[in-house]
Amino acid sequence: MSDSQDLGITESKEHSTGDWYAEVVRKANLASYGPDGMSGFIITRPRGYSLWERIESFLDSRFKDTGVQNTYFPVFIPESYLEREKEIVEGFDPEVAWVTEGGFDELDERLAVRPTSESIINPYLSQWIRSHRDLPMRVNQWCGVVRWEATETKPFFRTKEFLWQEGHTAHASDDAAWEETLTRLDQYEATYEDLLAMPVLRGCKPEHDKFPGADTTTTVEALMPDGKSVQGATSHHLGQSFAEAFDITFADEDEAEQLAHTTSWGLSWRSLGALIMTHSDDQGLVLPPTVAPEQVVIVPIWQSDTKAEVLEYASELASELDTAGIRVELDDRDGRNPGFKFNEWELKGVPLRVEIGPNEVADNELTLVHRPDGESQVVNREGATETVYDHFDQVYAKLYASAEQTLAEGVRDADSREEILGTLGRHGGYVKAPWCGDEACEEPIKDAIAAEIVMVPFNEDDPIDATDDAECALCETTAESTAYFAKTYWLTPPQPRHTVEGSQRRPPENSAASVPSHWSDYRL
Amino acid sequence: MSDSQDLGITESKEHSTGDWYAEVVRKANLASYGPDGMSGFIITRPRGYSLWERIESFLDSRFKDTGVQNTYFPVFIPESYLEREKEIVEGFDPEVAWVTEGGFDELDERLAVRPTSESIINPYLSQWIRSHRDLPMRVNQWCGVVRWEATETKPFFRTKEFLWQEGHTAHASDDAAWEETLTRLDQYEATYEDLLAMPVLRGCKPEHDKFPGADTTTTVEALMPDGKSVQGATSHHLGQSFAEAFDITFADEDEAEQLAHTTSWGLSWRSLGALIMTHSDDQGLVLPPTVAPEQVVIVPIWQSDTKAEVLEYASELASELDTAGIRVELDDRDGRNPGFKFNEWELKGVPLRVEIGPNEVADNELTLVHRPDGESQVVNREGATETVYDHFDQVYAKLYASAEQTLAEGVRDADSREEILGTLGRHGGYVKAPWCGDEACEEPIKDAIAAEIVMVPFNEDDPIDATDDAECALCETTAESTAYFAKTYWLTPPQPRHTVEGSQRRPPENSAASVPSHWSDYRL
Repeated sequence: MSDSQDLGITESKEHSTGDWYAEVVRKANLASYGPDGMSGFIITRPRGYSLWERIESFLDSRFKDTGVQNTYFPVFIPESYLEREKEIVEGFDPEVAWVTEGGFDELDERLAVRPTSESIINPYLSQWIRSHRDLPMRVNQWCGVVRWEATETKPFFRTKEFLWQEGHTAHASDDAAWEETLTRLDQYEATYEDLLAMPVLRGCKPEHDKFPGADTTTTVEALMPDGKSVQGATSHHLGQSFAEAFDITFADEDEAEQLAHTTSWGLSWRSLGALIMTHSDDQGLVLPPTVAPEQVVIVPIWQSDTKAEVLEYASELASELDTAGIRVELDDRDGRNPGFKFNEWELKGVPLRVEIGPNEVADNELTLVHRPDGESQVVNREGATETVYDHFDQVYAKLYASAEQTLAEGVRDADSREEILGTLGRHGGYVKAPWCGDEACEEPIKDAIAAEIVMVPFNEDDPIDATDDAECALCETTAESTAYFAKTYWLTPPQPRHTVEGSQRRPPENSAASVPSHWSDYRL
Repeated sequence: MSDSQDLGITESKEHSTGDWYAEVVRKANLASYGPDGMSGFIITRPRGYSLWERIESFLDSRFKDTGVQNTYFPVFIPESYLEREKEIVEGFDPEVAWVTEGGFDELDERLAVRPTSESIINPYLSQWIRSHRDLPMRVNQWCGVVRWEATETKPFFRTKEFLWQEGHTAHASDDAAWEETLTRLDQYEATYEDLLAMPVLRGCKPEHDKFPGADTTTTVEALMPDGKSVQGATSHHLGQSFAEAFDITFADEDEAEQLAHTTSWGLSWRSLGALIMTHSDDQGLVLPPTVAPEQVVIVPIWQSDTKAEVLEYASELASELDTAGIRVELDDRDGRNPGFKFNEWELKGVPLRVEIGPNEVADNELTLVHRPDGESQVVNREGATETVYDHFDQVYAKLYASAEQTLAEGVRDADSREEILGTLGRHGGYVKAPWCGDEACEEPIKDAIAAEIVMVPFNEDDPIDATDDAECALCETTAESTAYFAKTYWLTPPQPRHTVEGSQRRPPENSAASVPSHWSDYRL
């Protein structure tokens, strides 16, 4: 980083969360904005991409251990294939980027840049699956998808193109499909809890907000420090509706033709957005050591007469840690004072700093400083590798504990409309309320404060958890479940969509107004 | 695989190479053809994708060990950005897929689906590089690119969308850029030789066929058994032309502004095509153990009275090999006889088969069969893991030796036009001839038998290796280098391009005829 004015966050996480977030992403070199004419796209820089690689590696190895095989399907989907999906799914034309020309020629049929791949993967599953011996069939792809979002974009959280994985599976029985759905939800939960130091809530989307065509959409939800909920990943039990639409059948053990049961599940780089938002602070990025590009930075502190011995001591340590497989950076730059270096590495989110000055050398010690809270500790030089690992654990535990506290304090009960509105308005977070299951009871909350039901907890044998003898907080009929109301970053009161005369290729038969206001969320 | 008629290759590698290749790809479950309306696209199935994953993993770890960082740039490039590249590169509009609509709206500016990313990566390198301390900067991405090929497509070898990696680097000096170019060429060579069991030739493209704008295009070339050459990967020393076009400058140690020196380099899934073509045979796919999805298959052979003991013995072995990290498959299916299983696993390219019958059990032995040549050997059950690894090495060595022999026998000398034409016509392979360096001398060969200069060997201090005192085999002026002439899968005599009235969006200012006939090859 050459420009010192680029160092240091000027926005406040508490008072201008959005601007602060954008500044952290940019100044920690995670991403740059896309070129002119491509607003809503980002360039993922090496430090940002390496975070995604660690998530991919964590999740991919778990997928493979549980029978998933990777594939690659084309980036384009013919329009006629998308149409077929419309039998079961409301149109999503408003969010599709269309290829209409190849070379100098206009194409006979428009090609969608994939917004998700159900409509091209399912026809192939149908071809590949003949017999019960071919089941379960589990395919996954790590790829980019494009959704022409009209709403405000935000690096990683919501971008017109984003990276994700999408898994698609077929099974012989409903039970097997349900087990698959929960296996993937478990793996998403583990990604947040064991890799990203973030506790999540798990449950289902309400009926009116599940993935269209799905029997059940399960979700992991993460609470951001500013009180908003982020849908962390979803795993859909699709039942037989997709199998029926795409003719996914198999011969059972008696050679009788049966309809398969399918699932799909996905996690996107929105998880990176949630990670950054959760742990970072007004000094910049904060990362758990599990995913940090540099896990530890060594900053030597010298005067001219002590430089040689300090640097030698520091580089021996760097070499020892490196040999142990620790991602270590030795910042031995001339012309930058230690304070400057501290600030820069804090901005970049290095979890642990080692300070080495003449005193440390003389006493055969190291000074360790934790990024999240600045806690500093002097430790013995002997056994440094083990000590550093131990401090990684301490830093991880601090981050997790802090996020856990946010979540624990962020879940509140309410028994009436007024209480729901008041509590959400004052505190944000989740408000739990008994709910009859009717979408109509969500409307007044949505209209008043742009909050919605983000989750319904479930016990996993019985997807919807009935709350005994309670009354719906909104309509006072019998409650069927507990609804978690929350605000999100994108939910805004519905607005009529303006179509610009002359700029339309064809009449919007499925007008934007008929499309779920946050369709994208279904696919994540 | 449910349909027995799908088993077994019906085409001959020798007599109908193209059909045979397509049949192997399909029946070994490597890829399916794209949907209607998307000819030239493929679906990469799990067994095909796992081959690509192993190449990616091999190469990516070497990239990272040598200072490369991964990134992700958008799938779209605004038309105006591509225009900027035209300052140095001839237009490639004929090969671009254009997005013109987002949702219901026509876009103000067309977006190209990336055919390669120079034109979007270089402007960001220009932003990110300020000082000599930022150099070298090396970014790479693993991604899909789209080229609207008019020529015949072939799974993996040439597809409208293909997966590849593209690396882009900037350096402070010409020497550093040249060193980078060769480092990547070394790594490509190692990918072929140490992972894919294929020897390659390394050299440069002739001046008239290098990547437009490059100082030097280096290449690794592989000889296919049918006598055609495949460009395996290219690494371009770009000199300062791209730096100049995209304003990639840095402040040197004296704070003076300097122009950077850049490189780019790429390897695509064409390497998979070359792998399949090189080793496979009329029984189906043949793979080296390094990349095979299943490295060893155990086929138990039983009668009803020996089934229990044979299966127990076989599964103990499977478990032992699996524990050792070997990718092992135990084929204990009922209802398939051993011969059927042998054929199926041969078709799928499993390098090593273990046969276990009552005799093996009684004698505490195993029968091992090598896929490439059917050689069979009875070995002791004790130390099976080590024995299996040893046989992997033997199979690898056989494959490599066979490809090496093809290459050794496939390079012939010629001293005249007649000899070049005659030798290439009779034998294919490479014909080495002294060459003056003038493109005009390639024309008669191209016109007569659609062969071209695919490579010029170089010694690495001096890219073009002058052949002392020799005369050009074609024009008899002084030879400047040795040219390797060969046929490729795609070079066909130039044909006028027909434009269809009414289907053109705009006049083809850069008409297809002015575009290099195999532009794609430059980018690989």
